[in-house]
Amino acid sequence: MPPLADQTPDLLRSTLAELQARYASLQSRGLKLDMTRGKPSPEQLDLSEGLLTLPGNRDHLTEAGEDARNYGGVQGLAEVRALFSGVLGAPPEQIAVGNNSSLALMHDCLVYALLKGVPGGERPWSREPEIRFLCPVPGYDRHFALCETYGLVMEAVPMTPTGPDMAVVEERVRDPRVKGMWCVPQYSNPGGETYADETVERLARMEAGAPDFRLFWDNAYALHHLTERRPNLRNVLEAAAAAGRPDRPIVFASTSKVTLAGAGLAFLAASPENLRWYLGHAGKRSIGPDKLNQLRHVRFLREANALERLMEGHRRLLAPKFKAVTDTLERVLGGSGAARWTTPEGGYFILLEVPDGCATRVVELAAGCGLAMTPAGATHPYGRDPDDRMLRLAPSYPSLAEVEAAAEVIALCTLIAATEARLRA
Amino acid sequence: MPPLADQTPDLLRSTLAELQARYASLQSRGLKLDMTRGKPSPEQLDLSEGLLTLPGNRDHLTEAGEDARNYGGVQGLAEVRALFSGVLGAPPEQIAVGNNSSLALMHDCLVYALLKGVPGGERPWSREPEIRFLCPVPGYDRHFALCETYGLVMEAVPMTPTGPDMAVVEERVRDPRVKGMWCVPQYSNPGGETYADETVERLARMEAGAPDFRLFWDNAYALHHLTERRPNLRNVLEAAAAAGRPDRPIVFASTSKVTLAGAGLAFLAASPENLRWYLGHAGKRSIGPDKLNQLRHVRFLREANALERLMEGHRRLLAPKFKAVTDTLERVLGGSGAARWTTPEGGYFILLEVPDGCATRVVELAAGCGLAMTPAGATHPYGRDPDDRMLRLAPSYPSLAEVEAAAEVIALCTLIAATEARLRA
Repeated sequence: MPPLADQTPDLLRSTLAELQARYASLQSRGLKLDMTRGKPSPEQLDLSEGLLTLPGNRDHLTEAGEDARNYGGVQGLAEVRALFSGVLGAPPEQIAVGNNSSLALMHDCLVYALLKGVPGGERPWSREPEIRFLCPVPGYDRHFALCETYGLVMEAVPMTPTGPDMAVVEERVRDPRVKGMWCVPQYSNPGGETYADETVERLARMEAGAPDFRLFWDNAYALHHLTERRPNLRNVLEAAAAAGRPDRPIVFASTSKVTLAGAGLAFLAASPENLRWYLGHAGKRSIGPDKLNQLRHVRFLREANALERLMEGHRRLLAPKFKAVTDTLERVLGGSGAARWTTPEGGYFILLEVPDGCATRVVELAAGCGLAMTPAGATHPYGRDPDDRMLRLAPSYPSLAEVEAAAEVIALCTLIAATEARLRA
Repeated sequence: MPPLADQTPDLLRSTLAELQARYASLQSRGLKLDMTRGKPSPEQLDLSEGLLTLPGNRDHLTEAGEDARNYGGVQGLAEVRALFSGVLGAPPEQIAVGNNSSLALMHDCLVYALLKGVPGGERPWSREPEIRFLCPVPGYDRHFALCETYGLVMEAVPMTPTGPDMAVVEERVRDPRVKGMWCVPQYSNPGGETYADETVERLARMEAGAPDFRLFWDNAYALHHLTERRPNLRNVLEAAAAAGRPDRPIVFASTSKVTLAGAGLAFLAASPENLRWYLGHAGKRSIGPDKLNQLRHVRFLREANALERLMEGHRRLLAPKFKAVTDTLERVLGGSGAARWTTPEGGYFILLEVPDGCATRVVELAAGCGLAMTPAGATHPYGRDPDDRMLRLAPSYPSLAEVEAAAEVIALCTLIAATEARLRA
């Protein structure tokens, strides 16, 4: 097909008619597909089948000889913290283990900051007339939802291939109302970018107007490679300490997409001062996390390279699905100029950029074919993409055949929406 | 021994010398005992040994056919809510299942109330110039710590054998600054009282100054009987609904002292409106609780009367320890007038009341003998017992022999402190 931009109105009309015929044919297949969320597939969860019978009879003692079944231990087991020390880029004593959700740890840090303040701050954030958070866009809707629910004003910062646009960040962070910033530094959700060393270092050392400014460093995809390459992300805790701002970052991660999405372990890593702060509040909230699930994970991952082999298993299941999407997009949309998309080296998403004003229409058309997509706008603060342009594709959960069918639908719907837009132009 | 009050100063001095000799002898035994917290013993945890290999290979589907390993399901599995519906006194649809800590659910409700407000309220609680909570005393130190950390002013309300002194409560709750009240309605921590029907009904129907007043109803010991008697606590959700105040109570409970202290399930039960409110916020905080642990519990408790048999196992282990304490206190202190204590029919604590000004001294003397007790004052808001009189004894964790030794220490230390006090008087 010639590029849409080169087609005459007459040709566009006949193109559209042909696309609509293909759409009707797809509709008649009665598909029921869901690409809304970055959920692991059942086959991925099967990789951690061993967890379902662990820790095993009479196996409830920690390395320290404590009973993991009983109360206590707000920081989490030392052996779990040691096991994930490398992933988190922090010594075990600067790590806390939570329950099954790193989002919950981010939420709790936000809440403690709002109600109690953070080290280096003058007062609880909720006492400020206004608080702002920098939000690289496209970004993660659940981060944005936390800001929105607690009334934190979100400021969008454009992403670049090396991370957030640092000129904008360095300018905006001088505003003392800016108290925090969301970062998914590796295989960013949904753009797939990994922050360059220079980006991490500038984030670590930049002059912030608020003395208690925090980077909410959600390293959700630290191990989630889709290729043989390893990005070697700069350690933000070390960069911040070297820049004399050790308390700036709070690092979050989890095994939700390593072991079990709903029954994994969440982690927080931070400076000694931040960790004391976090544990002080977490210890008021609860007597401690589920240590038996921690023991279960230690037993399951105890063999050398167990983590690496597990992630290799995920890659083998995920990479073909990502390839199916990008191959299909290329086959249907290639040369049309109707869209561009990412070919991520890790993480859980493909970002599809359609012509301005078309994203909502693509989602609507896809729904008409039985495909549920992440709503247009979900990638932006307040659910509003001002250009109505970005779509997050989540190919992990459906089967490979379903992903292929879904990609076909998405590509076709994109082409239809783009053709309609050209005709209106 | 004649009552201390009847002893002449000379007799008191020789009594004290004799007690000090016994104390020195106890000291020489080099005891190392801990009666600080209401922790289950290893033998109690062994009753739930079956959980350590559950749910079992390939057993990850819920009754609804959903994969418990994956994300989702913020309210918790329907079959778990059905299983605990009777315990919570609410239909399954009015129940939410959390992770391993009911204290965390209480914390989160408090935080949501502070930052967002509750149904029926005009604004977030944190926007009020001052918020107050009614705290029946003696009470649970972790409840008080939540109030203290978030700056909620605590007002002590005396406990009576039928629950909090309702005349005081009804008077104080008219103050619109009073937004909440802590209640442990059955086998209260630490006094062991169970609220009378009349108390529950008055709490449910009383006129509150704040339209968004809430009862934080921590029914921690719903199943935790020490005798054959069953108290049949009035259902507060029903009482509140009948009084036209369905949103007043929020009920909390957990299996921490049913299955595993650190790896159980926590529950919240409330009116439909309160439950929507809670789930709306909890769903922002996290994608959902650990459903695999819920499945594990359903599998473990699936046989008829499994809960009852489990609790009977706890009773068999706990009742002799409670009896050892009260028997020893009676043997050593009986007739001395130096103390009185409870003989609880359930729960985890014995309340020991020593002469005014003596509680701190008893704890100090016990520490000198190698026995760690809950600090004096822990039973009161801000850790201050104005009369320095109440001590919480927690006999569950140590072995029966250790409990006997500890009770011996406590009784002797009480007698010494009381004799010293008489001599000063």
